[in-house]
Amino acid sequence: MKAAVWHGVKDIRVEEAELKALKNNEVTVRVAWAGICGSDLHEYQEGPVFVPVNAPDELTGEIAPLTMGHEFAGVIEAVGKDVTKYKVGDRVVVNPTLTHGIKHEDVDIYDGFSFIGLHGDGGFATFANAPEANIYKLPETLSLQDGALVEPTAVAVQAVKEADMKFGDTVAVFGAGPIGLLTIIAAKAAGASKILVFDLSDYRLGKAKELGATHIFNSGQVNPSEAVRNEVPDGVDVTFEVAGVGPTFKSSIDVTKARGTVVIVSIFARPIEWNPMMLTNTGVKVTSTIAYSPTTFQQTVDLMGTGQLKPQGIVTSQIKLDNIVEGGFEALTNDKTQAKILVELSGEM
Amino acid sequence: MKAAVWHGVKDIRVEEAELKALKNNEVTVRVAWAGICGSDLHEYQEGPVFVPVNAPDELTGEIAPLTMGHEFAGVIEAVGKDVTKYKVGDRVVVNPTLTHGIKHEDVDIYDGFSFIGLHGDGGFATFANAPEANIYKLPETLSLQDGALVEPTAVAVQAVKEADMKFGDTVAVFGAGPIGLLTIIAAKAAGASKILVFDLSDYRLGKAKELGATHIFNSGQVNPSEAVRNEVPDGVDVTFEVAGVGPTFKSSIDVTKARGTVVIVSIFARPIEWNPMMLTNTGVKVTSTIAYSPTTFQQTVDLMGTGQLKPQGIVTSQIKLDNIVEGGFEALTNDKTQAKILVELSGEM
Repeated sequence: MKAAVWHGVKDIRVEEAELKALKNNEVTVRVAWAGICGSDLHEYQEGPVFVPVNAPDELTGEIAPLTMGHEFAGVIEAVGKDVTKYKVGDRVVVNPTLTHGIKHEDVDIYDGFSFIGLHGDGGFATFANAPEANIYKLPETLSLQDGALVEPTAVAVQAVKEADMKFGDTVAVFGAGPIGLLTIIAAKAAGASKILVFDLSDYRLGKAKELGATHIFNSGQVNPSEAVRNEVPDGVDVTFEVAGVGPTFKSSIDVTKARGTVVIVSIFARPIEWNPMMLTNTGVKVTSTIAYSPTTFQQTVDLMGTGQLKPQGIVTSQIKLDNIVEGGFEALTNDKTQAKILVELSGEM
Repeated sequence: MKAAVWHGVKDIRVEEAELKALKNNEVTVRVAWAGICGSDLHEYQEGPVFVPVNAPDELTGEIAPLTMGHEFAGVIEAVGKDVTKYKVGDRVVVNPTLTHGIKHEDVDIYDGFSFIGLHGDGGFATFANAPEANIYKLPETLSLQDGALVEPTAVAVQAVKEADMKFGDTVAVFGAGPIGLLTIIAAKAAGASKILVFDLSDYRLGKAKELGATHIFNSGQVNPSEAVRNEVPDGVDVTFEVAGVGPTFKSSIDVTKARGTVVIVSIFARPIEWNPMMLTNTGVKVTSTIAYSPTTFQQTVDLMGTGQLKPQGIVTSQIKLDNIVEGGFEALTNDKTQAKILVELSGEM
């Protein structure tokens, strides 16, 4: 079969690859669509970040070169002999997150995790294998293309759940990249009454407005604290930090009301300088989010199924697997108007 | 009357001072005992920190030179004409925190605050005036000397409340100075089942053990993360950061369980370098505490009254007002075995 295989930094090859033998607890999915994630891009631009290169990954047992892609949906092609809940022909989405599964799902992920498609073979291929426990049925209201959006949307749903956001709360979002946009969509679906979004790109801000932001601000041109307090005098209830740098971290605290919550959604590439007195002076709490629990993944499928969550607007491009380097990774590197690029595999809708 | 007056850094003078005219909503307290706080020490060593020197303070209307002391109790000597709840002869403790009082007490303090005894005349004097709203009656079970311990104990009670600590939770405390010791006492009174304390001074650690710590560690000699995980394999439920420097901030997150809470109790004098990924990797929340609400102050009086909170063990020295510079500020500067020094004014018990 054809697959996009990571061999090294700037070296992802579309080539013939062999599907690994199906385990008894696994299903084989004929992949229809798969999204390119920011972490895929990091592996391309400056990897290996997650991809195991020195020793096999603890949870997948795999090592580079490996097939990338962890946001994917398709149709079940085969089932292992212990699989009971799914059958050939089922339309499904894969939760790519593998954990130790020793503790409750609320804390399980903090024992460490691996991703199908980063730590082991994934969905940029005709077929992909995944454990039955990681498979979720798609409701009839969702296309297979919609299915490829479940995983990043689940990240945003988890972020909103981590905020303890209440119906009607006011929200700020720093960063309007794909996860920032999905966070706007999720916060709206959870009933946020105002969503104030900051980014340096007017194009992304336009997209944010389209997808549910009530106010947009170019953070290169305004003082975020003043901008927010003009609209919400005491500061917002909840702020999502989706930019991952010192200035947005500090602004996130600045724009939040006394005893409000800042949720770190981004991955900080390097340390920041900061005075914890910013919390003492404001009573703001700082929390974070990573991936999603299985419960959140199912809720995301359900909320997309009912139409309460409509992430489709983040898709800016649809490409064929053959074009994944130029039309995918290079496009995301060079074209700041790109948000989510979907790769067509079998292309079934 | 005699008072300890702040004139400048290293210039606190015991001298004749005049009590300001009593306002209609105020009472005059004949001070019995007053404690020296870490913030008093900062004003002496490197002030002005809080003391207003350029313009009168917004809430007190006062400016240096002023009488220090904000942890004090005594007997009411006179009442203003609008005072209804107290009478001459009542044994009382003063809540020195003045706020704008516009918002609910949970957030009121984040609009700004001033302290009787830092931003205006306080309790290192024969008499002190305070608004009726800041006066709390002492239960008969408490002496006036106990009364002088209510204020710093209330800081620790608020810290424990900010942690959302549950009965039986495991706790770590970084820093065994006066507030660290009181936090140990408060956590114990709230039902912490294990209290692991870190400090660089073996003397302070001994004190911590005496006052309720179940395990003590010299942080210069152990790796805090390993030390905690030997006792509590998943990490503690709650950590109190009472040291205020980068290494203890990071250790506080390190020793806390997934989704546990770190409460910043200390005042950070300078920024720290830190990667917010420490939260993303652990799910630990960071929150903070400052002073106490009026409700917490009353609860502290009540809990001390019933004997559930016994902060008396933190007192290491009792001195006369005339000796406050040598026996108080200089002793606290030079003698690391000092924790809480109480100053005797009228000396009634």
